[in-house]
Amino acid sequence: MAARPPAAAGPPFVEPAATPMPAAEVEARVARLQVTLRERELDAALIVQNADLFYFSGTVQQSYLHVPAEGEATLFVRRSVERARCESPLERVVELDGPRALTGALRALAGGLPRRVGLELDVLPVTAYERLLGLLPGAEAEDVGRAIVRQRAVKSPYEIDRIAAAAALVDAVWDYAPRVLRAGLTEAEFAGLVEAEARRLGHQGVIRMRGFNQEMFYGQLLTGPSATAPSFLDTPLAGTGLSPAVAQGVSFRTIAAGDPIVFDFVAVREGYTADFTRMLSLGPLPDAVRQAYAVALEAQAAVAAVARPGVTCRTVYESAVAVAERRGLGAHFMGCGAEQVRFIGHGVGLELDELPVLTTSDAPLEEGMVFALEPKFVLPGVGAVGVENTFVVERDGLRALTRAPEEPVEVPLGA
Amino acid sequence: MAARPPAAAGPPFVEPAATPMPAAEVEARVARLQVTLRERELDAALIVQNADLFYFSGTVQQSYLHVPAEGEATLFVRRSVERARCESPLERVVELDGPRALTGALRALAGGLPRRVGLELDVLPVTAYERLLGLLPGAEAEDVGRAIVRQRAVKSPYEIDRIAAAAALVDAVWDYAPRVLRAGLTEAEFAGLVEAEARRLGHQGVIRMRGFNQEMFYGQLLTGPSATAPSFLDTPLAGTGLSPAVAQGVSFRTIAAGDPIVFDFVAVREGYTADFTRMLSLGPLPDAVRQAYAVALEAQAAVAAVARPGVTCRTVYESAVAVAERRGLGAHFMGCGAEQVRFIGHGVGLELDELPVLTTSDAPLEEGMVFALEPKFVLPGVGAVGVENTFVVERDGLRALTRAPEEPVEVPLGA
Repeated sequence: MAARPPAAAGPPFVEPAATPMPAAEVEARVARLQVTLRERELDAALIVQNADLFYFSGTVQQSYLHVPAEGEATLFVRRSVERARCESPLERVVELDGPRALTGALRALAGGLPRRVGLELDVLPVTAYERLLGLLPGAEAEDVGRAIVRQRAVKSPYEIDRIAAAAALVDAVWDYAPRVLRAGLTEAEFAGLVEAEARRLGHQGVIRMRGFNQEMFYGQLLTGPSATAPSFLDTPLAGTGLSPAVAQGVSFRTIAAGDPIVFDFVAVREGYTADFTRMLSLGPLPDAVRQAYAVALEAQAAVAAVARPGVTCRTVYESAVAVAERRGLGAHFMGCGAEQVRFIGHGVGLELDELPVLTTSDAPLEEGMVFALEPKFVLPGVGAVGVENTFVVERDGLRALTRAPEEPVEVPLGA
Repeated sequence: MAARPPAAAGPPFVEPAATPMPAAEVEARVARLQVTLRERELDAALIVQNADLFYFSGTVQQSYLHVPAEGEATLFVRRSVERARCESPLERVVELDGPRALTGALRALAGGLPRRVGLELDVLPVTAYERLLGLLPGAEAEDVGRAIVRQRAVKSPYEIDRIAAAAALVDAVWDYAPRVLRAGLTEAEFAGLVEAEARRLGHQGVIRMRGFNQEMFYGQLLTGPSATAPSFLDTPLAGTGLSPAVAQGVSFRTIAAGDPIVFDFVAVREGYTADFTRMLSLGPLPDAVRQAYAVALEAQAAVAAVARPGVTCRTVYESAVAVAERRGLGAHFMGCGAEQVRFIGHGVGLELDELPVLTTSDAPLEEGMVFALEPKFVLPGVGAVGVENTFVVERDGLRALTRAPEEPVEVPLGA
């Protein structure tokens, strides 16, 4: 038997579902990077990491984005050039027949090889870096990854809209969660139901993190004492996890009446991230949890009262710590004992671990920065408790992009 | 109001749910790496990447695993040492007060600083590498990442059991999928329902890949022409995705009657991976799809007829290509046109992109290797079709770990 080849013979391409990134966004981002390149006396940057590629080109194909210190950027694409052309607003998208063709293509189409080149050394593995340098004979490389991270910390109005759309997704998932919570569910089972709703609404699944070895799957949906397990993650809470192989997140623990359920959920939609925490329970929450939650809200309000452009991260951090200490919960704030982390929030955008880090740093907040503020407490033997919203820094202070009501939701037992 | 501190004041730790890795496993793996170190005249390896840490220590805490060429391995842990001690069968687990303490700790507890040290240069970012070398004054580094990848390609009986458990999970999810498929669902909605079942059964969520920029979320659940979109991924199929930010996976497309649904699902349980594809539809599959599926099964049988220890990957690869060509589907095999990939399978284990790669390579199969074999066809305008099973290489040939029936499942319309 010979199978009949299919009738249709056109190209296998299907239009992507979402709107391509506006050309003006990409142009402004590239222009801003070019200022950095000129300040640093670099001839060009070659961008290769997915989140950075998407930021500067609107597509994440296998490619090298060449950004000269002056002039037009060129996207050299190994796979898939068809898709890159469809998705990227850049005018110069060039097909590359394998990585070795990069050298000749730069000579022919990008004004020659750079002598001083900026690479993303904070994320590029050593062997990939050496291979890339081998394609740039005579070039000397410097890190531009950290400069890109600093640039990306300040969001454009377009990006703030995208993050607001992710925030709307997590608001909707939170609204849905109490409807599927019931006695007898394991953490894993409850997470699956909530995650299915997030998917239905367009959660992209993949959560990007820049830090080496950092991993995250939808956030941390943790119940009772599971929420208090120590972890390798740079987070106040991480959970027991299903096994030591991952060592974070949900477990097979059955959710019990009165367990504080920390609903810490990361929404990612069209690349952009919002981070969110609310409290949920089956039946009434213990008083200690309600009281600590009130302190978390008070810490959030203290931050909102001081945070505006020009204020340092340290001032913001200390305003929250002061509330926790004044209320007698300093030893439980952002973890317990040796597990305490020394920050109360982090930037979010195309990656979950962006700038600013709200810690004891003298870096000032800037207008357009977007961060998740997450005052949380670990109560040994009981669980964890906290609130988290994603805020944008505006001229006069913070504006919340996550907008769901903050009151804990207690699902009646037997519902 | 001062919140009442919680009554319980013990450590916040909770036992992990799963069994720790057997000590004999870790000992054998470390001993095998030590053979490599001695062959390469390296004094020690310092392992830091999550999958490798789990492989050699049974835990993925923030740590450095020091493996000397001779003698006992030591796990130096920054966070969380409590959890590392609970999870790792290694006897020497030492707390480290920040990364800078590593230098002194190696001098005091590991027989001094290595002069020639093996690092995972295939995954370690350049700046992290430079920071690590700064902690090892006088040391010269060589890559051991690729040697570790080669070592990890051959699985122990314990590991094969773990992969079989992951395979049982995906078999169960496949059994469940037709029960929730119905007209009107989008790809994203259907994926969410199936993923929820996977979570309930213990899917760990996080899928680890070693390749730079490679990402995967539960696999590729693709329907009709969505399955034919070109992609940056090193896979025959990738999907349209929800936006250019991810550019793979499910979309908002509504599943239509007769669409070939490629149910390509990656199960990961307790760290170990199984990869799997079957065909599903609402109503009858088109004849062209059924015929191509028969060719995929024939290609799989051709591989099974030749694959055994000592046979090269090239022989295996060519046996499948020959079937596709003989049946007139060579131009559609493993992608279409410029999008064809030149492999028919890949190793799976703690990462999805392991060795062996079933391509035109002269590397021989070895007993204990585990790979996913995925003969697939892209039929422009129609969709994609294929089968995938996870096999272990035994002395006499292949044994399938994924065991679900291979017959396509056609869900009656209006069911």
